Amino acid sequence: MKVKVEVRLKPGHFDPEGDITAKSLRDLGFRVKGVEVSKVYTLDLEARDAEDGVRLTKDMCRKLLANPTKDNFSVEVLPGEERTVEKGKR
Amino acid sequence: MKVKVEVRLKPGHFDPEGDITAKSLRDLGFRVKGVEVSKVYTLDLEARDAEDGVRLTKDMCRKLLANPTKDNFSVEVLPGEERTVEKGKR
Repeated sequence: MKVKVEVRLKPGHFDPEGDITAKSLRDLGFRVKGVEVSKVYTLDLEARDAEDGVRLTKDMCRKLLANPTKDNFSVEVLPGEERTVEKGKR
Repeated sequence: MKVKVEVRLKPGHFDPEGDITAKSLRDLGFRVKGVEVSKVYTLDLEARDAEDGVRLTKDMCRKLLANPTKDNFSVEVLPGEERTVEKGKR
């Protein structure tokens, strides 16, 4: 089963990579007000069904992929499997 | 207008961060076959309409956000605007 996890900064956290990217795009002439950078993990994992896959993946986020102090995450089972989207806020 | 860009490695390119993440998850007891890591830029930009936003964003990918040698990218105008998904392969 393929599951996609997006890990992004909670609102209000400083995103220097996003700020530099926005500045670079403006230097190239694009009218960009802001950029937020986040990371996506596409996991190939063994799970009984979509519900089990989401549960396991949220556990992975809590244990490794997301930093509870500064990150939010969302979990999505990719098509080909039962499609399920769940948001996780910590 | 908010536009989301996902930049990921072309198939066959070495993804050390994904490999290490998969190993770490397996060390924690998760049954993970593999992990791919990609990056998402959420852009707040000025554009006339969704079509113009996608065109500008693809131009940003070609000029800054994606490395044509090793990356594919996809561009999606976020809801709230007209929803448009377009894939870019280079």
